[in-house]
Amino acid sequence: MLNRFLMLNVFVVLMLGTSTQVTTADDSPNFIIIYADDLGYGDLSCYGNPTIRTPHLDQMAAEGLRFTQFYSASSVCTPSRAALMTGRLPVRSGMCSDKRRVLFPDSGGGIPESEVTLAEALREQGYKTACFGKWHLGHLPQFLPTSNGFDTYFGIPYSNDMDRESSHGPKGRQAFLDPKTEYWNVPIIKDLEVVERPADQTTITRRYTEHAVEFIKDRGDQPFFIYLPHSLPHVPLFRGKDFEDVSARGLYGDVIEEIDWSVGQILEMLRAEGIDKNTCVFFSSDNGPWLTYNEHGGSAGLLKEGKGATWEGGMREPGIAWWPGTIPAGQVTLELASTMDLYTTFIELSGGAIPQDRVVDGVNISPVLFGTGPSPRDTVFFYRGTELMAVRSGPWKAHFFTQTSYVKGSGVRHEHDPPLLYHLNHDPSERFNLNEKHPEVLESIQEIVAKHRADLVIAESQLEIPLQGK
Amino acid sequence: MLNRFLMLNVFVVLMLGTSTQVTTADDSPNFIIIYADDLGYGDLSCYGNPTIRTPHLDQMAAEGLRFTQFYSASSVCTPSRAALMTGRLPVRSGMCSDKRRVLFPDSGGGIPESEVTLAEALREQGYKTACFGKWHLGHLPQFLPTSNGFDTYFGIPYSNDMDRESSHGPKGRQAFLDPKTEYWNVPIIKDLEVVERPADQTTITRRYTEHAVEFIKDRGDQPFFIYLPHSLPHVPLFRGKDFEDVSARGLYGDVIEEIDWSVGQILEMLRAEGIDKNTCVFFSSDNGPWLTYNEHGGSAGLLKEGKGATWEGGMREPGIAWWPGTIPAGQVTLELASTMDLYTTFIELSGGAIPQDRVVDGVNISPVLFGTGPSPRDTVFFYRGTELMAVRSGPWKAHFFTQTSYVKGSGVRHEHDPPLLYHLNHDPSERFNLNEKHPEVLESIQEIVAKHRADLVIAESQLEIPLQGK
Repeated sequence: MLNRFLMLNVFVVLMLGTSTQVTTADDSPNFIIIYADDLGYGDLSCYGNPTIRTPHLDQMAAEGLRFTQFYSASSVCTPSRAALMTGRLPVRSGMCSDKRRVLFPDSGGGIPESEVTLAEALREQGYKTACFGKWHLGHLPQFLPTSNGFDTYFGIPYSNDMDRESSHGPKGRQAFLDPKTEYWNVPIIKDLEVVERPADQTTITRRYTEHAVEFIKDRGDQPFFIYLPHSLPHVPLFRGKDFEDVSARGLYGDVIEEIDWSVGQILEMLRAEGIDKNTCVFFSSDNGPWLTYNEHGGSAGLLKEGKGATWEGGMREPGIAWWPGTIPAGQVTLELASTMDLYTTFIELSGGAIPQDRVVDGVNISPVLFGTGPSPRDTVFFYRGTELMAVRSGPWKAHFFTQTSYVKGSGVRHEHDPPLLYHLNHDPSERFNLNEKHPEVLESIQEIVAKHRADLVIAESQLEIPLQGK
Repeated sequence: MLNRFLMLNVFVVLMLGTSTQVTTADDSPNFIIIYADDLGYGDLSCYGNPTIRTPHLDQMAAEGLRFTQFYSASSVCTPSRAALMTGRLPVRSGMCSDKRRVLFPDSGGGIPESEVTLAEALREQGYKTACFGKWHLGHLPQFLPTSNGFDTYFGIPYSNDMDRESSHGPKGRQAFLDPKTEYWNVPIIKDLEVVERPADQTTITRRYTEHAVEFIKDRGDQPFFIYLPHSLPHVPLFRGKDFEDVSARGLYGDVIEEIDWSVGQILEMLRAEGIDKNTCVFFSSDNGPWLTYNEHGGSAGLLKEGKGATWEGGMREPGIAWWPGTIPAGQVTLELASTMDLYTTFIELSGGAIPQDRVVDGVNISPVLFGTGPSPRDTVFFYRGTELMAVRSGPWKAHFFTQTSYVKGSGVRHEHDPPLLYHLNHDPSERFNLNEKHPEVLESIQEIVAKHRADLVIAESQLEIPLQGK
């Protein structure tokens, strides 16, 4: 309640601050979410990467707010993206499973119609909405972006390593290590139609970017929301001709440096159009680096493990917020935040209301963005499928289960009783288990878990529904 | 030759740029080296640390040049500092040993008189020189800073964990984990005299800083060189009252945040005195984090291992160069550089000459600082005592021997034949050995080693000389 109040106050102050403008739909800020795929906590220069150059993201951070404890809601694609779009833990929407970790081309399920997506909520407030990139919340017509609140869509509907054409290229892993775009027969969908197949992945980052830039140019009078989920740096890695061999980090670095270029293009267009001061841009990624792909995977920096794991490296991500004149420049925040909070924050900033008929896990982090107060978030739940593996409460994280990172199928699973306990502020690399020293912390986390479970309804999994006729 | 030429050109341009001034001693830039102790590659916010706040160092980097591949010349204190002061690998000066890794209070040796220290070379050019902090190049009068080119000295002459008072506090490791300043009977020496014992270590960072700030204020007309080697964050950890419990990272973070404050004080004083544009400040550390001290040790970020090891985490360090108006602002460089290069660069920028009667390992990195060209350095030698453990050549690093990180005495040593081979630009964490795939690289590194050894004279160790009467 206090936080809602704080936020409203800030909003009023901001409105007063922008001179004579009155609060109409036209004053609503634009929102852009740029979402990388499998980019690790340690993959950007401003997060300490030594050999990947990301001058545009560094500049975005220098002009905005850099989070050091920002979380995605899952360590794999589909559930993570579902949480971003719904503001809810994937376990509540059915967008996770203990059998299949993500949606596949042979999946018949997708995001349930009952979910209120961020795009639907913003369109309700008069926003123009667009999605350019990897969707991965269902590829049947009823699940695609234009059926879920987006006015327009252009992109590969699932991961770029799906639809493997077994007749092309070397077998197994080798195809990934020397990838050619024709090895994967993934489609590009425009709105509801397949317009290209196989997708030319070497131009995909550029084309998503061009669509976004064009959309900004042609935006008209309405406020807008652009969701730009890049297909990369998910393996197989591709980049455009202009980015071949530009990075000291090799192919993976080339890919990140093209995404960095893309961010620069977006911010530059906002400035050129004179709407930078009315646009909030957020950059993050869906989950940690795919470490088992060696040099083709990224780095979680000092964090433990990567994609697929509920160690920090699997779910803590770069998070950069940019809104010149509103988000103070050059700040670093240690406050806790989650992709689900973007849902709640952006809807409330647009003047919209959060659905009251369901549990929404996002909180409004405007106080953190505006530098006016602490984050209302003090808890992070780490799920794998429907299993609650770990919980962060303040600086403490308890692991009930751990499992080695993403390997085909799954890795080795361990149960911990008592749970492993780490003080993440003192020990971000999760090296020093303190469960014997702090039983009282474990107790309070068990209470949080009990409370969480009391009203938890695990939705039927959408990821296990087969494609009809398959 | 080309690089020297480039540098001179830049220097001339700079001089022309500063309007009507002529090149006299008064135009010589001031130099300040701020050197932390056991600070890891991943311990600063601008190098990706999530919970240590370093706004002044971040600002210094934003206004200057941040190196991502900057090396100390050893993974432990004494040899690392000897290399910084002499521009030479410790094996050439005798400031390393296979038996004792550093100097101890019972050591009778120190930096040989025959060495030309950076302070001596700069004093030759008319510089006022001062050292405030940890020396660790010998504590007998003939080895102290004022016998080696410094006009004045104030500091603890060796590591802050020496002279353990066994009658005080708990035994062994426990004293380090809950340290009180009286547990260590280390002296503070002013010039040649002990002025305090035991040193009050809780005020040591502040006092070093105040001495430096005072020295800047009272500098007079000469150009100056300040060497400010902090005693911390070497264990045992201490910080001043104002920094108790300020950091989310706990005690270790408090210590780093006080050092960050110290950097802010120095830069602020340079600005206040109007000499910021004529002063080059460089920040780094002597070696990687002391990982075996758990939360009391720092982090090497994504780099492998820490203090005591010749893996990257032992010797790659933060390196930030600041010289407003001369070093372009907000740059990140991947160029190779070493503490030994500060020796050569600063002497040449002062108008001085590098000693010609010996091998000097430092190169002039002015082109990197000024953004005018690549680094003349393409090789890094990783020594442990007199043993050449590894060599970096361009992006490649070959390990002939590896040893687990700093443990009392030594860790487990492995010989590698063929050597392990890593591509550090692609694989900064040294995860993927490529020796089978690239024998030609190993061959070229063996040639570098042969050439290096051809003119190498291993000096008699100074670290094995006992204190007379002991």
